[in-house]
Amino acid sequence: MKSRSPREVAELLKDHLIHPSEAAEILEDGEPSEIAASLAGLDEADAADVIEHLDLSVQRDLVDFIPRGHMARVIERMAPDARADLIKELPEEVAHGILPLVAQAERVDIARLVSYEEGTAGSVMTTEYAVVNADDTVSAAREELRRQAPGEETGYYVYVIDSDRNLIGIVSLRQLLLARPQQRIEEIAQRDCVSVNAKDDQETLGDIFSRYELPSVPVVDDTGRMVGRITADDVIDVVEEEADEDIYHLGAAGRPINYLRSGVLRIARERITWLLILVATGLITSSLLQHYRGYLLAEGGIVLVCFIPLLMGSGGNAGSQTTAVIIRGLSTGEIEMRDVWRVIFKEMQVGLMVGLALGMCAGVRALLVGRDQGGSPIRLGLTVGLTMIGTVALAKTLGGALPILFKKIHLDPALMSAPFISSIVDVLTVIGYFALVRVIYF
Amino acid sequence: MKSRSPREVAELLKDHLIHPSEAAEILEDGEPSEIAASLAGLDEADAADVIEHLDLSVQRDLVDFIPRGHMARVIERMAPDARADLIKELPEEVAHGILPLVAQAERVDIARLVSYEEGTAGSVMTTEYAVVNADDTVSAAREELRRQAPGEETGYYVYVIDSDRNLIGIVSLRQLLLARPQQRIEEIAQRDCVSVNAKDDQETLGDIFSRYELPSVPVVDDTGRMVGRITADDVIDVVEEEADEDIYHLGAAGRPINYLRSGVLRIARERITWLLILVATGLITSSLLQHYRGYLLAEGGIVLVCFIPLLMGSGGNAGSQTTAVIIRGLSTGEIEMRDVWRVIFKEMQVGLMVGLALGMCAGVRALLVGRDQGGSPIRLGLTVGLTMIGTVALAKTLGGALPILFKKIHLDPALMSAPFISSIVDVLTVIGYFALVRVIYF
Repeated sequence: MKSRSPREVAELLKDHLIHPSEAAEILEDGEPSEIAASLAGLDEADAADVIEHLDLSVQRDLVDFIPRGHMARVIERMAPDARADLIKELPEEVAHGILPLVAQAERVDIARLVSYEEGTAGSVMTTEYAVVNADDTVSAAREELRRQAPGEETGYYVYVIDSDRNLIGIVSLRQLLLARPQQRIEEIAQRDCVSVNAKDDQETLGDIFSRYELPSVPVVDDTGRMVGRITADDVIDVVEEEADEDIYHLGAAGRPINYLRSGVLRIARERITWLLILVATGLITSSLLQHYRGYLLAEGGIVLVCFIPLLMGSGGNAGSQTTAVIIRGLSTGEIEMRDVWRVIFKEMQVGLMVGLALGMCAGVRALLVGRDQGGSPIRLGLTVGLTMIGTVALAKTLGGALPILFKKIHLDPALMSAPFISSIVDVLTVIGYFALVRVIYF
Repeated sequence: MKSRSPREVAELLKDHLIHPSEAAEILEDGEPSEIAASLAGLDEADAADVIEHLDLSVQRDLVDFIPRGHMARVIERMAPDARADLIKELPEEVAHGILPLVAQAERVDIARLVSYEEGTAGSVMTTEYAVVNADDTVSAAREELRRQAPGEETGYYVYVIDSDRNLIGIVSLRQLLLARPQQRIEEIAQRDCVSVNAKDDQETLGDIFSRYELPSVPVVDDTGRMVGRITADDVIDVVEEEADEDIYHLGAAGRPINYLRSGVLRIARERITWLLILVATGLITSSLLQHYRGYLLAEGGIVLVCFIPLLMGSGGNAGSQTTAVIIRGLSTGEIEMRDVWRVIFKEMQVGLMVGLALGMCAGVRALLVGRDQGGSPIRLGLTVGLTMIGTVALAKTLGGALPILFKKIHLDPALMSAPFISSIVDVLTVIGYFALVRVIYF
């Protein structure tokens, strides 16, 4: 499929022999001017179908190659949520050039949708849905459905509203199909339906859809008026997006960007900030080592240094495990703020347990090295083994506690990335190690 | 809501004043015997609704506290996919004790669903869906729908089959509602509908649902016969599950488990394997440092050691960033096998670019330290700076290449966790650092 040329794609699209999303996937790799050329022969509705499946950054670039009047017609035919996303992505002067050419009804719809903040339920919803009045009979409701958006698929549920457009329940199309024509909608409507507020955080949507097993959920404003609908397939995108963010944050990789389409400079810019912060904390560790160099220069002291990277690395790894689990748990809602002590207590225990195992390995190895080199093998083994236990337990406790504490003070818990927690543990490991050296050796 | 007692929950459930999933969430924290007691007063359908919303491990433990005959009735009333998952989770002897008591039709359905391997589309699908015959008229199809599973919600699409049960298209309930009664189904059916094979990998589902924006997708066997239906809300669970796996693997945290409900021993067991592997590679690094200790003991050599943790840490962090991006990209399908050279080339460039920036910082710092301590500041600065550039570029290149190569040889790319790649980079960093020391100092 991927090997088709833009010209072939245009032909297939004209005859509806290819799904718009597949066409978009093929065209996406080309230049914006090529994409515009491929779409030029299509009618506006077909072009809209393809454009809304393109990556947003591609859509933005493409707009420059389509005449404004034509673009306005295309925007009128795009899905409400897709066109609102595009308008938000466009530079202000470009949007202001096109919007006045868009028909009144669609312009109002766009203005309403773009007003919802990114990351809210309102920014995910569509305004394409069917409503019926609670007082209607089933047969009147069927007529109403025929009238509303005749060509479109408006989903399994029809929303039941009162005269003020307040959401008061839902009926499924199945119910409408099977009910007697003279029944009233309010008799068959399901009243205690799940709904979300347009201002709700989109993070909560995955949980609501999977818990209540719904194909779509109505969105209301603060006064209970119906303003939109969110479909499960859009929530799949939200869930993927949130997971992307978790993973990028965990790896301290900056914001999620379209990797293959982004230039090297853009990628480097996303990555450099965290790396510089981590180098700064790394320099603290290196200053500490200089501070303690007296110990290393003492008779047989140099062997002490060989175990520092092992200890730091193990602390980092032990912390990464916990941070991964906790960041993910916080974001899926499995772990909540009130679990903070439970998490800390658990990680302390797990940390001591696995620390003991790792401490034994490292301690025995240090003992053997110390014996070979004629130093004081027992002291070395003890210092390395005990530091390992402490480092691992500490790393796990901090890895559990810091993301939760960060969330508590309303910062993104994922700012506490695994590398950052490792850096903190590094510093503490060096201090602890040499404190032990002083006690055990001197 | 969480503060209600199990007894209160039971009362609310009996009067249908609480959603089964909310009841499940509250009950889940109690002992299995308590949960069984709360559910004992409910009829089987209501109990089934609650049980299928409990965590699978809780369902498994609960079964021991419910009489077998009653459990069989409950299983008959559970959703097809939910009960198949439960049967798969039960110890064989328990399942064999209950299944013979389950009604024939449901037993056959269970046997069919459990036969699909975990991780396939078949293991996610439900067998609850509505079908109509292509030859039927619209009014006959409506009658048929009334007959099939009268109480249930079978989704927005009705599947159109031929006399051999081959899937030949779909009609939406909206179409059925609005079509003229005497029209034939094959006239209004959409023929080129998206379907998946029951053996397809569940990882592909998120992409299909979000690309085609569908509420549900029919599942067919190898011969094209309709065998089930997958709904978008179930795919949300799949997508969350896959993201969990990515994050756990990235953090080398073992398999995803229910964190709060798992005991300390269980958690420690999941974590220890990777930590031991990483300690083993860490010991290689420490042996290398011993091997090179001659350099450290030379006049002014001790200052060299102070920069090793900084270099290793930066390599690890640079690698983690890339590994996070690539593992995620592979799993969402954004990055494919054929992109391997593109990724390697990109990461090499990004690595050199950010490596240069970090190398400058570290090099200048080393220069200043060297000057203070009266060593050879320029040599030190050069050694540290150049190693930093090499380490960061190498870490990014390996972090990009190894997950893809692992996928190529059909191993889970996430086995190449960030800590593991860091360990490899650690070893190479030490070797490179002392190679530079030899060239520059001696």
